[in-house]
Amino acid sequence: MQEFSLLQHIFRSQPRAAGPVIIGPGDDMALVRLAGRELLAAVDQIVDGRHVRLATTPIELVGRKAIARSVSDIAAMAGKPVATLVAVVLPVGFSEARARELFDAMRSAADALFAPLIGGDIAMHSEPTAPLVCSVTVLAEPGSPRGAVTRNGAKPGDTLYVTGELGGTLDADGLGHHLTFTPRIAEAIALAEQLGERLHAMIDISDGLGRDASHIAEMSSVRIEIDAAKLPRRNRVDWRRAIADGEDYELCFTATGDVPATIAGTPVTPIGRVLPEDSTSESGGGGGRVIVVAENERIIADRMGWEHAES
Amino acid sequence: MQEFSLLQHIFRSQPRAAGPVIIGPGDDMALVRLAGRELLAAVDQIVDGRHVRLATTPIELVGRKAIARSVSDIAAMAGKPVATLVAVVLPVGFSEARARELFDAMRSAADALFAPLIGGDIAMHSEPTAPLVCSVTVLAEPGSPRGAVTRNGAKPGDTLYVTGELGGTLDADGLGHHLTFTPRIAEAIALAEQLGERLHAMIDISDGLGRDASHIAEMSSVRIEIDAAKLPRRNRVDWRRAIADGEDYELCFTATGDVPATIAGTPVTPIGRVLPEDSTSESGGGGGRVIVVAENERIIADRMGWEHAES
Repeated sequence: MQEFSLLQHIFRSQPRAAGPVIIGPGDDMALVRLAGRELLAAVDQIVDGRHVRLATTPIELVGRKAIARSVSDIAAMAGKPVATLVAVVLPVGFSEARARELFDAMRSAADALFAPLIGGDIAMHSEPTAPLVCSVTVLAEPGSPRGAVTRNGAKPGDTLYVTGELGGTLDADGLGHHLTFTPRIAEAIALAEQLGERLHAMIDISDGLGRDASHIAEMSSVRIEIDAAKLPRRNRVDWRRAIADGEDYELCFTATGDVPATIAGTPVTPIGRVLPEDSTSESGGGGGRVIVVAENERIIADRMGWEHAES
Repeated sequence: MQEFSLLQHIFRSQPRAAGPVIIGPGDDMALVRLAGRELLAAVDQIVDGRHVRLATTPIELVGRKAIARSVSDIAAMAGKPVATLVAVVLPVGFSEARARELFDAMRSAADALFAPLIGGDIAMHSEPTAPLVCSVTVLAEPGSPRGAVTRNGAKPGDTLYVTGELGGTLDADGLGHHLTFTPRIAEAIALAEQLGERLHAMIDISDGLGRDASHIAEMSSVRIEIDAAKLPRRNRVDWRRAIADGEDYELCFTATGDVPATIAGTPVTPIGRVLPEDSTSESGGGGGRVIVVAENERIIADRMGWEHAES
């Protein structure tokens, strides 16, 4: 079963945004309007063994990652954090001291990211081998008068950009980027302020650039072409890894006009362009929505798995 | 390890409500104020084997319960539902068809309770025996000009009330109240509208009347005395079960002055009174904050387990 296909089922069978719901499921965050005020909300979760490894990772970093992943969704919408809620299921035999360390770490991370922990729930597993599960809900406001930046605004002619560097995120040089990243809140808000309506679409890179760019492409009904030679790579990893590794928690966005080379101290790199939808991509078939152009090949990068395009 | 003691650690080490956070962890919901507008938020979760039994319960009722439990927290604050977010970890071997049924059930329940599902996350367990986990975050607004009703406003001289009937909630006469209850949203809002500032404190009964009343007593720095003979009992269960069974999802509240015998079609029963704190309860010792007075005994009901008070 594909997690994404199941989410799509949920999104698609959801009635269109109605009443106070302006953006329903399907973007980085939902948006509800209450008395003219916009509120963003999203939930994400970590499961031991899938997103973290309790056996080898300091508990402080497990707690930090749980919070930072969800706050990265706020950055994707150019939002300003408001608050965090956490629900945790603890494994059998998890000591109270360790549970306190975990919650202290989550609270510290939430405070440091200006998203204070306002609510929580704790349950205990009864199944001896069941893993730690932390689900983290974040609330936010639009961070600038530009309002929330969605995935569905990319237009043909836009340039595609990323912040920071990509790939090698799980490599254990030190602790690994996926455990130590800082969500790009400041960068996202500065981009929204400086570019205004020229900032067309944005997402944070969690699944890998290829897959996340395909979410922009699909929701905007466009195609995206990425130039492999331009990808900013962490530790000179192969360009394929810069697209496929995931857990970068950088911003990927499309815009028109001038974009600064640095935003809030972080490099911004143009890596591709937005093209009109063609009949192949419209059909949802094998044509692909995200194409990476490298020296000797053109590759479809819509999915985590790599499929060679006919060129 | 006690879940409640761990939650208390989190509450107590939380800095006092600051900035937009008006009510932090420790009540049924947190409250944040954004541009003068109040927003309530809470998270709750169900774990298969602890809160539901997938093996024997129709999946629609599992999804419904997950949503309704969290919406009951909205009722406890006299809130009006706004939206729901769900994070689910599916067991190994859970089919996509069954996952869709679960999400459809959650969406239907959320819609029916006016808390549309606006966001979600899905992960898969890799450990073969790890159970289904559903965490449900709910957002709400105060349901009346009275504002949110907290646990900490009970005053000596108040009368203690409950809605509906208590106990026997897991008994399998039909499907069991814990799977079929409707959160008392309408009743709570009507109480807040009709009683206004005379409605002092409120909670929903999930852990059992004794334990939940003790949360009101502790947070309000009072004692509570319950008259066993007045308890409205489901199917004439023993009065001890009406206090200890839990999963009633009825409202327990304290108020002064006249209170209607029926609210939004649901019976309201006076069951006790609020007394000043005494030196015994202040010390947090064995004196107890919630005392049940029965024909031949006085019982401390603060905890799920029963301890006989010296009388």
